[in-house]
Amino acid sequence: MSLRTYLDHAAGTPISAVAREALLEALELTGNPSSVHRSGRAARRLLEEARESLAASLDAHPTEVVLTSGGTEADNLALRGSWLARRGDGRDQVAVSTVEHPAVAETAAALAAEGAEVVGLGVDADGRVLDSAWAALGERTAVASVMWVNNETGTVQPVERLVEDCRRAGASSHSDAVQAVASEPVSFAGSGLDLMTVSGHKLGAPVGVGALLVRRGLALAAVGHGGGQERDLRSGTVPTALAAALAAACADAVARRTERTATWVGLRTRLLDGLAATDLTGWRVHGGERTSPAIVNLGFDGLRSDDLLMLLDAAGLDCSTGSACSAGVIQPSPVLLAMGAGEEAARGSLRVSFGAASSAADVDALLTALPGAVERARRVGG
Amino acid sequence: MSLRTYLDHAAGTPISAVAREALLEALELTGNPSSVHRSGRAARRLLEEARESLAASLDAHPTEVVLTSGGTEADNLALRGSWLARRGDGRDQVAVSTVEHPAVAETAAALAAEGAEVVGLGVDADGRVLDSAWAALGERTAVASVMWVNNETGTVQPVERLVEDCRRAGASSHSDAVQAVASEPVSFAGSGLDLMTVSGHKLGAPVGVGALLVRRGLALAAVGHGGGQERDLRSGTVPTALAAALAAACADAVARRTERTATWVGLRTRLLDGLAATDLTGWRVHGGERTSPAIVNLGFDGLRSDDLLMLLDAAGLDCSTGSACSAGVIQPSPVLLAMGAGEEAARGSLRVSFGAASSAADVDALLTALPGAVERARRVGG
Repeated sequence: MSLRTYLDHAAGTPISAVAREALLEALELTGNPSSVHRSGRAARRLLEEARESLAASLDAHPTEVVLTSGGTEADNLALRGSWLARRGDGRDQVAVSTVEHPAVAETAAALAAEGAEVVGLGVDADGRVLDSAWAALGERTAVASVMWVNNETGTVQPVERLVEDCRRAGASSHSDAVQAVASEPVSFAGSGLDLMTVSGHKLGAPVGVGALLVRRGLALAAVGHGGGQERDLRSGTVPTALAAALAAACADAVARRTERTATWVGLRTRLLDGLAATDLTGWRVHGGERTSPAIVNLGFDGLRSDDLLMLLDAAGLDCSTGSACSAGVIQPSPVLLAMGAGEEAARGSLRVSFGAASSAADVDALLTALPGAVERARRVGG
Repeated sequence: MSLRTYLDHAAGTPISAVAREALLEALELTGNPSSVHRSGRAARRLLEEARESLAASLDAHPTEVVLTSGGTEADNLALRGSWLARRGDGRDQVAVSTVEHPAVAETAAALAAEGAEVVGLGVDADGRVLDSAWAALGERTAVASVMWVNNETGTVQPVERLVEDCRRAGASSHSDAVQAVASEPVSFAGSGLDLMTVSGHKLGAPVGVGALLVRRGLALAAVGHGGGQERDLRSGTVPTALAAALAAACADAVARRTERTATWVGLRTRLLDGLAATDLTGWRVHGGERTSPAIVNLGFDGLRSDDLLMLLDAAGLDCSTGSACSAGVIQPSPVLLAMGAGEEAARGSLRVSFGAASSAADVDALLTALPGAVERARRVGG
């Protein structure tokens, strides 16, 4: 593994040293945080310290933190919970951008099958929600959801506009900030959002933990049922050790954000300048000017992403494609299609994403391998 | 912590050495198991090995293992997923025993609010489902859920009867086996169940992971939505490291089951014989003859559980009560009430539960503290 070049941090980044330490320390503590005896109270204390730390990192109040098993569960709770809580008031509409992660897009689709009216908020060629789209939010809107940073292209969405138009419409605002926390100045309080999703394994915590931030007083219904933990919004024994790891990872990611962002801007520039200096033609950058520096989405004419990925893989490089591959059928990226990229471009994208340990050497390894791989992929699959 | 006597393993047992080792080893592996590159494939390989191991421990097929964030999520998926999948065929009924864990009982209550007909399967004084109750299962039943081992009393339910009557009725059968795996000879294939819930932190894995076993070909709908992981039944990045820890803990628990069960039978006898040898009167054992040896539920006349727990806590003993305490209001145990124990008895119970490291010294510490604590609790709260 150590000889490979890992450039897929948006799919999952290594656990950070502080998160591992926090996890191991907390795993020594036996006790269910809902138990009233001393062991239970010790677990509860550690859990609440983690919650306070996480809230501080994200500029939220501790009571606004609802721990979940990850981003997907948080997104489901945000959308379905809002719809359940508000449809009785004639708000049966759910609005989502056309470039959302499946955790939001598929939840919206499931709600549509159950009677919700789902409105798609269209995007421009860079993947940003169109100014004209916001007019769709109105008195029937229960919740509108627009991700903070797109997971495929890195495009930063106008979250302030989402909040403004949700307030005008009286709707709840939700943003999936899973890809944003590491590189954008994310403040829950400052954003004015009602609901915000974060996930552990994009920040250096283990897979299997995340959180939904829920503004105090917001109307939100539980989606799962049981012991009534997490203010009755998310039942199930709360994983103290995973929460401690998430809090430590998030604090670390936020503390090093400025420094890392500067590094990633440099790596992004090195990659794009390096590519421009090669003989490669027929390629472009998706996502426009305002993107997270941690994600670079490249489009190549005349090839299929899976061929390119396989060739890079053989050369020791772990990258990703925007497109979803399910059951062996390679689909064009729905995100790129929504951006109007056309089917060919949507089949020929490459996502490069940076993490804490990414270096110029990683980019150079990619620059060495990419032109040849693109050429071969064009020959086999164009 | 080390000087305390921990007798609340049913609420959560310490992480086992093998689970910690498996967790740490897997955490070194970066890579999303859904990624197609080499790092992703390595994570996928480890994940599938964990799935195979877990399936082998529980006598199931690997494809029958759906990983979840824990028992509560698995119970929600089993009940709601069955109801969603089968109500279209005129099966709008959900049957649950009257002594289920909140993860089942509250899910059933939520489904009732959404239009399901919920049937309670009554129990006898020991907490076992009555022979006469099964007649309620019929052509309108989507799913019937009866836990394998009761979490408060340890009562073992007639799972074979559940399966038999579900087959007769054409309904899906589900059992929450969270408290059963460590002490009962649990075989998913052998049981004939359609659905079975297991949870990590009752077995020595960390809190935050569990599984629903789903018989192949069963009609079950997803409850959450997203990337379509776990055969489209449970979306969200699958936590490879937590799955590896769960598999290791479960294999260990199953391998040592016979040996540990013998120890727990001895500890249970030591506790009950010891209590009988004291001057204490006005106490009894709940749950009858056929209980898991890992759980002992004692009832005391003329006291309130919370007073007793506090006094034991002060004496260095971590025990639990069957009753749920929410928002500071001490409720009588719904399980004991359903068993017809009467309100006084349902307010005066004590649950003692054993784990891998439980010893005669633990029981002796309890025997030393308990008579005085009961006497004092009777004085203050009777």
